Amino acid sequence: MTLDDVPALARGCAILGTGGGGDVETGTLTAVRAIDEYGEVPLIPLSEVPDDSLVLPLSGIGAPTVAHEMLMSGEEPLLIRDEVERILGRPVAAVMACEIGGSNGVGPVGWAARLGLPLVDADGMGRAFPEVQMVSMYVAGRPVNLVVLADVQGNVTTVRPIDGLWSERISRAVCIASGASALMADYVLTGAQARGAVIEGTVSKALAIGHAVQEGADPLGSLCATLDASVLITGKVIDVERRTGGGFVRGSLVIDGTGDDRGRLLRVEIQNENLIALEDGRARACVPDLITVVDAQTAGAISTESLRYGQRVAVLSWPCDPIWRTERGLATAGPRAFGYDIDYTPVEELNHG
Amino acid sequence: MTLDDVPALARGCAILGTGGGGDVETGTLTAVRAIDEYGEVPLIPLSEVPDDSLVLPLSGIGAPTVAHEMLMSGEEPLLIRDEVERILGRPVAAVMACEIGGSNGVGPVGWAARLGLPLVDADGMGRAFPEVQMVSMYVAGRPVNLVVLADVQGNVTTVRPIDGLWSERISRAVCIASGASALMADYVLTGAQARGAVIEGTVSKALAIGHAVQEGADPLGSLCATLDASVLITGKVIDVERRTGGGFVRGSLVIDGTGDDRGRLLRVEIQNENLIALEDGRARACVPDLITVVDAQTAGAISTESLRYGQRVAVLSWPCDPIWRTERGLATAGPRAFGYDIDYTPVEELNHG
Repeated sequence: MTLDDVPALARGCAILGTGGGGDVETGTLTAVRAIDEYGEVPLIPLSEVPDDSLVLPLSGIGAPTVAHEMLMSGEEPLLIRDEVERILGRPVAAVMACEIGGSNGVGPVGWAARLGLPLVDADGMGRAFPEVQMVSMYVAGRPVNLVVLADVQGNVTTVRPIDGLWSERISRAVCIASGASALMADYVLTGAQARGAVIEGTVSKALAIGHAVQEGADPLGSLCATLDASVLITGKVIDVERRTGGGFVRGSLVIDGTGDDRGRLLRVEIQNENLIALEDGRARACVPDLITVVDAQTAGAISTESLRYGQRVAVLSWPCDPIWRTERGLATAGPRAFGYDIDYTPVEELNHG
Repeated sequence: MTLDDVPALARGCAILGTGGGGDVETGTLTAVRAIDEYGEVPLIPLSEVPDDSLVLPLSGIGAPTVAHEMLMSGEEPLLIRDEVERILGRPVAAVMACEIGGSNGVGPVGWAARLGLPLVDADGMGRAFPEVQMVSMYVAGRPVNLVVLADVQGNVTTVRPIDGLWSERISRAVCIASGASALMADYVLTGAQARGAVIEGTVSKALAIGHAVQEGADPLGSLCATLDASVLITGKVIDVERRTGGGFVRGSLVIDGTGDDRGRLLRVEIQNENLIALEDGRARACVPDLITVVDAQTAGAISTESLRYGQRVAVLSWPCDPIWRTERGLATAGPRAFGYDIDYTPVEELNHG
């Protein structure tokens, strides 16, 4: 990964962020600075990580609004790597994104550069999700027995939680004590443990998406082809509702169809990310499938925070990784995990033809 | 330490707790149960701990009001000992009280019994204090580079703070996330590092206080003689204010003098412990000197949680350990460390004659 790759990666991560995952500007700044200072980052397939070496999944935790203003010191990846190697007695071979969607998909390039390590072409979501247990490693049954956090001051905290919910509760408290922003490693796995428990190829996919949007005369068509996405509606944002509470942004937006979609209304419900798209009371797409609102002209992603009345947009939806369609995947991040009393139907069945 | 020693130790620790340090009933229950199940605990001088073995200072952290209702699981000392030995690669030779005052002076007997280890005749305060950096090891310049917390659920959190204030901030946040109660080891030292950095003889002192209160016809006189304490006032509690928040109990009480003290009012301000005694706007005693409210008849300590309107009490004050009167000691736990804009004056100077 070179400096030139960062903008394309950022565009792709924003699309995969389905409205959330944090502002990609923060991750972009981290990546650009670190590559500039420490050099390029090799992107390697998981197969190149030795069975007994460690993959270090890193992500920022905290309020995006804070991370946007209080940049990291740059030393956090070193503090975490040293602590993880000391605890587990094995070398860290590569960095991985926990969450490819949004800022946490771009930041790992910078953290890997700082460590002089390669980045694994994989992540734990294939998208963004609002809660920490919503990762493929959890769905695959890997225990969350170690969380290491480092903050901008240099404090390092290691949590050995009894389960994912306690992991979230204690890590969140540590993060808040540190000023609502910290770098975190969780689900540290050996190469052998990571195989089958992470979603491979997602960094390459984000790069491909970023390039598809940028090149050619028809960004939206190019993006849909790359994603194999359905266009749920093209139209105008006529209502946006957002409220911040309990650590999340919740809300909804309504799009009034234009052109061929005139006369139709689509409503998208949000918890950090876009969760469900409804038309005439019926789901047109829902989690864990991806729903992204993009600018109708540029096909650039519009984040939850940037939604405004009057924007001309297209709403796209495309299939999630198969791990999310397993029974445990749906229990973790299907519509009922977010409080919607509906059964999951794949987006391609809801929008065939 | 046998089962028979526990009640005297508890009475002494309650007196040294200056109102806080947790209700000694909790520590007493812990000690009695563990001695009953795991046997007696040898009390050893620090000189018996080998130079390169570890002393494990243990204390409960959290709101005393919570610890009183949510008992520990009993496994917390094992979780902490194992984590400490794994991190430092040395055996733990003995348990020590971090804080001899209150429940945390009695609990270590039980935690030592559970671990099958001796208890060192020393602690880190010679009393109780509300914040974790307020220990003699900090005043003596020992680095607080490791804090290990275990909670009743079984979560184990290890903090490597950059200093004592961050240690307090992060440990407190973890404790609150765990339900406002946890067992904690901090300032884990080798025998060599502990020498000169802890207050020796304080377990024996608590036992002597406990016996002084119990024996003889004049408990209050006997207690004052043992402590070399001044009686600040004898009277009736006419006002008690208490609120729990941010992990502490804060408040104040007012005593209306009776007998020779008729017409006088003494106000005691509290942050878990009694911090300052004021009369007519002037300090009669203040931290780090000890201020304890005792029952006027039995000379038994009255904890912050047990204060009630109408109680007949005496308020005693006596000198702290000399380490607290050093410049660094006062900076750590003098009146300004608690937000009082007054200079420290030793209690014996404020109440001479």
